[in-house]
Amino acid sequence: MGMESERLFIGIDLGGTKIASALVDEDMKMIDRIVVATRPEEGPGAVIGRMLDTVQDLIARKGCDAGDVRAIGIGCPGPLDQRTGAVLDAPNLMWKDVSLAEPIARATGRPVYLENDANVAALAENRLGAGRGAEHMMYITVSTGIGSGLILGGKLYVGAAGAAGELGHVTMLADGPLCRCGNRGCLESLASGTAIARRAREIAVRPGGEGITKAAHGDIDAIDASLVASAAASGDAAAAAIMRAAFEYLGIAVANVVNLLNLDMVVIGGGVARVGDMLFDTVRRLVGLRAFACLARGVAIVPASLGADVGALGAACYAAEMLACGERRGVGR
Amino acid sequence: MGMESERLFIGIDLGGTKIASALVDEDMKMIDRIVVATRPEEGPGAVIGRMLDTVQDLIARKGCDAGDVRAIGIGCPGPLDQRTGAVLDAPNLMWKDVSLAEPIARATGRPVYLENDANVAALAENRLGAGRGAEHMMYITVSTGIGSGLILGGKLYVGAAGAAGELGHVTMLADGPLCRCGNRGCLESLASGTAIARRAREIAVRPGGEGITKAAHGDIDAIDASLVASAAASGDAAAAAIMRAAFEYLGIAVANVVNLLNLDMVVIGGGVARVGDMLFDTVRRLVGLRAFACLARGVAIVPASLGADVGALGAACYAAEMLACGERRGVGR
Repeated sequence: MGMESERLFIGIDLGGTKIASALVDEDMKMIDRIVVATRPEEGPGAVIGRMLDTVQDLIARKGCDAGDVRAIGIGCPGPLDQRTGAVLDAPNLMWKDVSLAEPIARATGRPVYLENDANVAALAENRLGAGRGAEHMMYITVSTGIGSGLILGGKLYVGAAGAAGELGHVTMLADGPLCRCGNRGCLESLASGTAIARRAREIAVRPGGEGITKAAHGDIDAIDASLVASAAASGDAAAAAIMRAAFEYLGIAVANVVNLLNLDMVVIGGGVARVGDMLFDTVRRLVGLRAFACLARGVAIVPASLGADVGALGAACYAAEMLACGERRGVGR
Repeated sequence: MGMESERLFIGIDLGGTKIASALVDEDMKMIDRIVVATRPEEGPGAVIGRMLDTVQDLIARKGCDAGDVRAIGIGCPGPLDQRTGAVLDAPNLMWKDVSLAEPIARATGRPVYLENDANVAALAENRLGAGRGAEHMMYITVSTGIGSGLILGGKLYVGAAGAAGELGHVTMLADGPLCRCGNRGCLESLASGTAIARRAREIAVRPGGEGITKAAHGDIDAIDASLVASAAASGDAAAAAIMRAAFEYLGIAVANVVNLLNLDMVVIGGGVARVGDMLFDTVRRLVGLRAFACLARGVAIVPASLGADVGALGAACYAAEMLACGERRGVGR
């Protein structure tokens, strides 16, 4: 380390179970990462305290000064208020109207930018991952829920109130299952890991579901999406049918977005996407079947490439870009 | 008229039955309009000849010089190639790969800009009509087909290959009616004027359909969407149910776009939208039911206000904006 000050950024991915933080240089190269448990049951103060400890640890381990960190980005579950840096309603954190950016800006003296977790993940995959070079791109995460973020014209698109990208809650089946958002037949209620597991538990106790029950060693409650994926991969027809039905809904939703937005790339990540071809082949087939041929040909549908780092890297990217464009909404500027 | 040259624009709305042209000043105030029949059966040469005659007539009636017209915009059915100014495939014109901007640029000596008709209509409603002031807006035309255009971040959004905005062909019902695009269950196959008329002809010959048959004076083939709307307005239950079902699909599609793009306005025009409240009340109700509450509250869903001039005004707007931003794609520059 010389006298010259460094240009570092910290990105924090605040999830319901884990807080993943990354220290990166100005080219968004990862220097260090720390993952700690969120433990939301201890309350917002304790969670924010752990986030601050992480920031201090990253700075201490690098041996740099807090002043070398140009900005801190936080990706967290929405809805949120980017202007005040507050998390408005995050059920998996049990948070309502929690001021998040302000205490972190105050304690660190650095500008803090807050954005939706799926949006910063979209930014990361577009700038650093599988979506590099795409001008018009959607990132979709298929996990316990389904989230998405849009890059349109090379920029993160957030809409009128910063809340765009709710692909998980487009209606795919007017009279479909009740979704946790209150609507029926949302994509998330039909194609998320939670939906796959629920359907498998229903099927497990019916004729044809014996393979699934066996894979769960008879414990119906133990059935989750990865168990269903394993059973499908081992040749169980009922499990394969459950996965295919879920991915066909995902494929129709992607086809609809392709027809609407004429994207050049769709990047799909999240735990459920780790099944690979089973998902991607189905989604590509449905887009080919249902979108306009010229639009279907023009869109690459590819797996995400940044893995578990996507949220923290995306939050760091977001902070760096907001700072560079002179965005005034960052708390602590 | 003094020595000073004027800053005029001409917009041409090329449809399957009519060519509507407008001469406007630089503030997009309508100076003159001419509507002629398209007569596509006479071939592209004759249609382009009629478009050129219209341009000459607008200039002659104004008593100005061709040089006072800064640019000409054309709104036409897509898909098209904005760069070469060719219409690639327009079934209602019976055109395939017809060079349109080039012959008009050559004959007039003016730069000519070609864009999709729903896109230029979106621009017109955003700049001059019901969508003024909206930053993130969708324009939807519900007529024999369903088209749409997007204004995102204050600008016309056309996507990777200029073909965005195909709301008419998002899948609303996986196993729904076959659509002319080859897909099943597209919004257009469920909610367009054509879909309403087809459903009414099916219902007319079944128990309960007597009111519709009577409204058509027994001539099932004479049933069209406006007849169904009239029957519904007069209290016929079957006709009302057909309209409501169509508008509920439209409402779900709008709710999906609201969740995806967090729009501040949705402007709906086209012949079918002239039924008014019957459509708007249903669409607003479905958006309230199915979109996130904060997003549903943030979006105004309103009737288009420019009527039959929307296409020609939009084409003129488009030409003026493309010229102003130094767009090089205009043919004849």
